[in-house]
Amino acid sequence: MVFIDLQANLKLALYPRRSLAQDAGIAAQAPSATEFSIGHNVSSKAEVDAVMAQAKAAGAVIVKPAQDTFWGGYAGYFQDPDGHLWDIAWNPHWPLPE
Amino acid sequence: MVFIDLQANLKLALYPRRSLAQDAGIAAQAPSATEFSIGHNVSSKAEVDAVMAQAKAAGAVIVKPAQDTFWGGYAGYFQDPDGHLWDIAWNPHWPLPE
Repeated sequence: MVFIDLQANLKLALYPRRSLAQDAGIAAQAPSATEFSIGHNVSSKAEVDAVMAQAKAAGAVIVKPAQDTFWGGYAGYFQDPDGHLWDIAWNPHWPLPE
Repeated sequence: MVFIDLQANLKLALYPRRSLAQDAGIAAQAPSATEFSIGHNVSSKAEVDAVMAQAKAAGAVIVKPAQDTFWGGYAGYFQDPDGHLWDIAWNPHWPLPE
């Protein structure tokens, strides 16, 4: 198990699906990519392209190439080696801190 | 869709599974409770019991009643109406801020 400190009092813990099933005392269920996604907002269209390219080079599967979105942004999806969906987005309506 | 501000620059967004599938351009997959859990650490065993009771009263299914854990803590699991696992825990090794 690995713990990633996101911010004060907030951690992201990563561990095998079977460990969660065992700890909760339930049967392991089939993986599903539509339970959640991890969204990562960046500051420009070019940065979306750069992150998508970096993920692909690292072994991710590009599910939806980066493209303009209906809400005026630019975003793409990839799946990491465990099948989890990542949404890389530039959202002009949500400026990021400098 | 609802956005919950967790901390600066970090939001939790809740929306239907079918919306994620549609946005990512993939087929909706069967729900799975073992993709992730939400962990909520509290400051005492009594508070674990109180949160579990509150969840049950609100319609949650108690999956694992609160009990002592192998790592010296006290924790229980419930599933919310969407099937998502919540782990309510008291961890004496991770003191919470006052």
